[in-house]
Amino acid sequence: MKSYFRKEIDAIAGYTPGEQPKMSNLIKLNTNENPYPPSPQVMEVLRNFDPARLRRYPDPTADNLRDLFAASVNMKRENVIIGNGSDDLLTMIFRAFTSENLGVAVFEPTYSLYPVLAAMQAAPVTKIALDKETFAYPADAVKQAGNANLLIITRPNAPTGNAADKSLVRDICREFDGIVLIDEAYADFAGDNCAEFAAEFENVLVMRTFSKGSSMAGLRLGYAFGNAVLIDGLMKLKDSYNVDMLSQELAKANFLDAAYRKDCCARIIADREQLKKDLEKLGFKVVPSQANFLFAAPPDGDGAGCFKALRDEAVIVRYFPGEVTGKYLRITIGTPAENARLLEVLKKRFA
Amino acid sequence: MKSYFRKEIDAIAGYTPGEQPKMSNLIKLNTNENPYPPSPQVMEVLRNFDPARLRRYPDPTADNLRDLFAASVNMKRENVIIGNGSDDLLTMIFRAFTSENLGVAVFEPTYSLYPVLAAMQAAPVTKIALDKETFAYPADAVKQAGNANLLIITRPNAPTGNAADKSLVRDICREFDGIVLIDEAYADFAGDNCAEFAAEFENVLVMRTFSKGSSMAGLRLGYAFGNAVLIDGLMKLKDSYNVDMLSQELAKANFLDAAYRKDCCARIIADREQLKKDLEKLGFKVVPSQANFLFAAPPDGDGAGCFKALRDEAVIVRYFPGEVTGKYLRITIGTPAENARLLEVLKKRFA
Repeated sequence: MKSYFRKEIDAIAGYTPGEQPKMSNLIKLNTNENPYPPSPQVMEVLRNFDPARLRRYPDPTADNLRDLFAASVNMKRENVIIGNGSDDLLTMIFRAFTSENLGVAVFEPTYSLYPVLAAMQAAPVTKIALDKETFAYPADAVKQAGNANLLIITRPNAPTGNAADKSLVRDICREFDGIVLIDEAYADFAGDNCAEFAAEFENVLVMRTFSKGSSMAGLRLGYAFGNAVLIDGLMKLKDSYNVDMLSQELAKANFLDAAYRKDCCARIIADREQLKKDLEKLGFKVVPSQANFLFAAPPDGDGAGCFKALRDEAVIVRYFPGEVTGKYLRITIGTPAENARLLEVLKKRFA
Repeated sequence: MKSYFRKEIDAIAGYTPGEQPKMSNLIKLNTNENPYPPSPQVMEVLRNFDPARLRRYPDPTADNLRDLFAASVNMKRENVIIGNGSDDLLTMIFRAFTSENLGVAVFEPTYSLYPVLAAMQAAPVTKIALDKETFAYPADAVKQAGNANLLIITRPNAPTGNAADKSLVRDICREFDGIVLIDEAYADFAGDNCAEFAAEFENVLVMRTFSKGSSMAGLRLGYAFGNAVLIDGLMKLKDSYNVDMLSQELAKANFLDAAYRKDCCARIIADREQLKKDLEKLGFKVVPSQANFLFAAPPDGDGAGCFKALRDEAVIVRYFPGEVTGKYLRITIGTPAENARLLEVLKKRFA
C-alpha cells in the first residue's frame, strides 16, 4: 500500500523505551524506577476515592497541582504546566519550539528520546559532545549550539549521572538566544537544582517528573515551570484533559508527604555511594552520580558482554551501544538486596 | 519579550474545552458526560489495587487493552492503538497525516477541536458544509475534500447528533485518496457503527473513547483501530508510556462489564427520545440524535439568550456561536431529574 504518512514520520524508527520484561525473579535495574513504594498517603486516597466521580472530566489544567508545585519553587500558578508524564511536556516543547527551521541542541550522550522528538518535527539536531572520559560539560556550549532555538540540559544527566556545574548552567541560560530546557528528572537525588533560573531568566523552563524520586512511574505525571508567556504558549498545545482525575489526586497526596519522599531518596543516595565503592573494588570505572543510577564501565570495557551476562542471571540493566557509551552500563539503584544480587553476579565475572 | 515559539503556535488561540464550573446545585449538561457511574467492577479493582505497583512504569503499549478491543471488533492486537483519551490519538493522527502540504477535510459544523489541531500543524482545512437545515451530508463530499490527506467523519456528529448514512460513509472510504478517520466517540448511543470499515479499507481508522458511553471521562482512555501499517506509524508518535497503570486496569474492568454499559446507554437513549418530545412540545426544533445529547433550537432561534437564561438557573449547556450553530443549544442527556429541571427552566421561558 502507498504511504499516507508525512515523510518525516516514515523516515524515523521511533523511540525504544527500556524493556519492561515479564520474567520471574527479575532484578529490574534498567529504567531508573524507585525501589520504594510511593507515600502511604496514596493508599489512603485510593481507598477513599469514589469511582462514580470518574464519569466527569478532570480539571483540564490541574490547578490544584499547579498551585502546589508553584508554591514549592516560589512561583505562581501561571508559571506551571502539568503533563501526562514529562514525555507529554517534551512533546509539547518540541512542537512549540522546533521545526525544519528551528533546531535543537543537546549534549552527547544524553536522553536518547530528544533526537526522536526532533525528527518528528523535521528539526535539525546539534550534538554537543561531553568529555569522552569524564563527561564534563564544554565551556563553549552556547557557541556550539549555534542558532538552535532550543537547548536541553539534562541535570543530572542521563545516562551518565553527573550534573553540569550550576554556574555553567547559569551562563548558558544568560547567553543562549533561545529556550533553555533544564530537564530535572533526577533532581531529587542531586545536591542542588536549578529551579531559581526559571524565575531569573525569561527563556528558561525547568521540568520535573514523578517517575523517579516520587515513585510514581506507573501514574504518569510531570510538570514544567518558567515565564508565564512560555507556559501560556505551551498550554495551547496541551491536550485539553491530559492528566486524569485519579492521577491528579494521588500525585497531590504523594507530593504533600515530602518527609517520606526525602527519606526514600536519602536511602537511595546512600546505597548509590555504597554501590559505587563496591563496583570500584571490582575494577569498574564509575562516573560520580547525582542521580538514582550509576554509569559504570566494567574492567574489560565490554558493556555489551556484561549486560548479557547479567541478563542471563535475570538482572536487567540498561546498555546503550556506541563508541563512548558502549563501554558502560547504566545501573539503577535498587533495594539493598537487589544491589547485593547485582554485585554477586558481577563478582562471578570479575573477582 | 521576543517570541521563541513557532509562528504557527503564536498564531493560534488554542482550543477552549467546555467549562467545568464549580457551582453548587449545578445541572451540568455541557460536555456530554454520562449521568451514570462506571461499572461497579471499577470499584473492585480500585479497592484491591496495590499502590506500591505505581513505582513501576506501565505497559507502554497497553497490550491487555489492545487484545480486548481488537477481539471486540474482530481484529488483532497489531490493529489497535491506545490513547490517553481520544484527544491523544487525534494529536498523533494530525501529526502523522497533516502538514503545510497535507491538508485535512472536516464537515461543518463538527467537533471544533479539529481545526485547532490542524493549525498546530500549519495544515490547510477544507470545510464541507452540512445542510444548514437538516445537517444532512452532501453526496459529493470526496470531491469537495479535494486533495486533502485526512478526512474526518464524526459519527454520530457533534454538535448536531445526527449520523452520516452508513452507505455514504462506505463510499467515502472507498473513494477518498487519503486517510478517513471515523470518530465514533458517540457510537454507544447509535443504532449502528462503522467498525467493519477499518478492516475493509486500508485507509480507514475508527476511533472510540471511554469518556461517553463508558462513563470514564475522568480517566482518559481512547483507542483507534485500522490497518496494522497505519497503527505502526502512529505508534512512532505515541509518548512511550501514554496510558497509566491504573487507567489500563480500571478501563479493562469497565469494558468487560458490557451488560452494565449497555443498560446505562439504553436508559440514556430512552431519555433522549423523551426529552426530544418534551422540547418539541415547547416549540424547539430538535435534530434527530444518535448521540447522548440533543442539538435543539429554541422557538425564537436565540441560542445565546436561552443559554444565558439556563445558566442563570445553574443549568449549564453548550452554546456554539455562529450563523448556523448560534440558533441552537447542545444539551447533554442527564438523569431523569436533571432533564426535568432543564425542562422546568425552559418552560418558564417558552410555555
